[in-house]
Amino acid sequence: VDNFDELKAKADEAKGKIVVFCEGFQNYGQAVRYRFSGASMAAAVGAVAALIYPPSPHSMYNPHTGMMEYIDSLPKIPIASLSAEDALLLERLYKRGQKPVVHIYMEAETLPDAPSYNVIAEIKGSEKPDDIIVMGGHSDSWDVGSGAHDDGGGIISTWEALRLIKKIGLKPKRTIRAVMFVNEENGVRGGKAYAEKHKMEKHSLVFEFDSGVFPPDKMQFQGQDSIFNAIKPIEAAFKGADSLQITKGGWGVDIGYMVRMGVPGLSLNTKDDGKYFWYHHANTDTPDKVDPKDLSRCVAAIASMIFIYSDLPFNFDTNNEILPNNKTK
Amino acid sequence: VDNFDELKAKADEAKGKIVVFCEGFQNYGQAVRYRFSGASMAAAVGAVAALIYPPSPHSMYNPHTGMMEYIDSLPKIPIASLSAEDALLLERLYKRGQKPVVHIYMEAETLPDAPSYNVIAEIKGSEKPDDIIVMGGHSDSWDVGSGAHDDGGGIISTWEALRLIKKIGLKPKRTIRAVMFVNEENGVRGGKAYAEKHKMEKHSLVFEFDSGVFPPDKMQFQGQDSIFNAIKPIEAAFKGADSLQITKGGWGVDIGYMVRMGVPGLSLNTKDDGKYFWYHHANTDTPDKVDPKDLSRCVAAIASMIFIYSDLPFNFDTNNEILPNNKTK
Repeated sequence: VDNFDELKAKADEAKGKIVVFCEGFQNYGQAVRYRFSGASMAAAVGAVAALIYPPSPHSMYNPHTGMMEYIDSLPKIPIASLSAEDALLLERLYKRGQKPVVHIYMEAETLPDAPSYNVIAEIKGSEKPDDIIVMGGHSDSWDVGSGAHDDGGGIISTWEALRLIKKIGLKPKRTIRAVMFVNEENGVRGGKAYAEKHKMEKHSLVFEFDSGVFPPDKMQFQGQDSIFNAIKPIEAAFKGADSLQITKGGWGVDIGYMVRMGVPGLSLNTKDDGKYFWYHHANTDTPDKVDPKDLSRCVAAIASMIFIYSDLPFNFDTNNEILPNNKTK
Repeated sequence: VDNFDELKAKADEAKGKIVVFCEGFQNYGQAVRYRFSGASMAAAVGAVAALIYPPSPHSMYNPHTGMMEYIDSLPKIPIASLSAEDALLLERLYKRGQKPVVHIYMEAETLPDAPSYNVIAEIKGSEKPDDIIVMGGHSDSWDVGSGAHDDGGGIISTWEALRLIKKIGLKPKRTIRAVMFVNEENGVRGGKAYAEKHKMEKHSLVFEFDSGVFPPDKMQFQGQDSIFNAIKPIEAAFKGADSLQITKGGWGVDIGYMVRMGVPGLSLNTKDDGKYFWYHHANTDTPDKVDPKDLSRCVAAIASMIFIYSDLPFNFDTNNEILPNNKTK
């Protein structure tokens, strides 16, 4: 079937069968619905398993993996991603009236939880050591590749940004803390645990880089207009080879809990020309896909932005209002 | 090792080991040497097997396959293609001083020859039925994909060109014969058998399309200048959306025997932007990679070129000299 509507219309035909979702890729939000909800939607009409066209604009015989959800009241049937090539083959056979037989062999299983840890490194602030700026990404990745873009490049960039600040002898006024969050991909429990454990500390910013290691494009801000207006002029520091815009918008999964608690959020967006989803959650997300020059440019953008932010002469109170320096709560 | 020179320099180290050729892809001619000769070159220094970086400019975890050659006096050791990703992983590990252990499992085997056939269809010439123009491609392909570009699209294009000439009621003066050659990939025995069986027939042209189904670029001619000069003006017929140049050069594997026997040869070249070798001899050479519009444009180019050629008012003698129409031998 192309989509969920067609599945409902063919509910009788789907009973006892394997459903193949073949709508293809228009954008990630549209395409990922089949991965996320396809199993339960197929189970609802009595199917025994579901297969999907991978949510990617460029398949070179690459299946895809990622988070999915079962609805508790429905049978938990298997779901797997095909390559685009095989999904299209099955679609051609079906449209010709043939009835291909597919055997599904899967080794995926859900094991009991085991301990894992966020990894944290920081440079203590010279003037306001208790005022914290977090920057990070996530250390977990899907097993099909090695997570070079998602999000190895993200955590290495923030790690390197911290190292660079230290190496060139900059003394940030606020504490800069690099956090490699665990478990972003299937639960965000690293981000949640950080928020729960550190919520009593004052945070002036949480920054996340999880958009793929391509040339820096813009810093996207999530928070109050008063803070946005105060940091917007930092753009001027980036006039040059990698002019970096500071805009409103964006989001970060790991920093989501902190942002919802009222901490200003910032995310680095890159110019990927659509290529992020070539590699994302596939066996192709490997180090050879990362251009070392792009990595260096991201490190420079993050180090500059975070250091300048850490040095800002005003205070962010816990409600994220900017107060004149002499009105610190 | 990067290349054969480095292998020779490291001959002692290679003894009893698996050699990995990691030079990467600059162009097909450079990269394919490792696939073609790598096994015997590795055997010559006592290696037990060889692995190669795939001869492709774009790997999304795609191994490659294709023709290779053993030197009879050396042990016939196994050779296989890795994906670029795995070749680069092994190279990184090796350069760090690690000694990765690789287990090779291969199912490839050489079975005894079995009969197969060229498939031939033709429109008899209205004036010169014994004067033949061949157009074709090859029906075999490597097993990892389905051979959509190499060379399914080639044979379908010539087949469709013949059907189109028939459908619109054109009556070619010479006989136009579409030939789907077998066994291009590992022996060219279809091309050889055709030449041996049909060499007594008069052929005024052998045309091959085996460059991937992309927008038509040029017709490349292999033969005598007198004929080239006579057909060059046909270019004028292609002024328009797909302006098609007629140039000297090119080659075709299937038509090679006929061309070496003195028959004029012609090959359609396409504007692939380097993408042909994304798919060539890999699991990605599947129908979804062929743009139906490009296929139609190739069919139109072939049908036009071949029909005009079949209608030329002069004669090609067996030595490929153009003779005035009244001097037919």
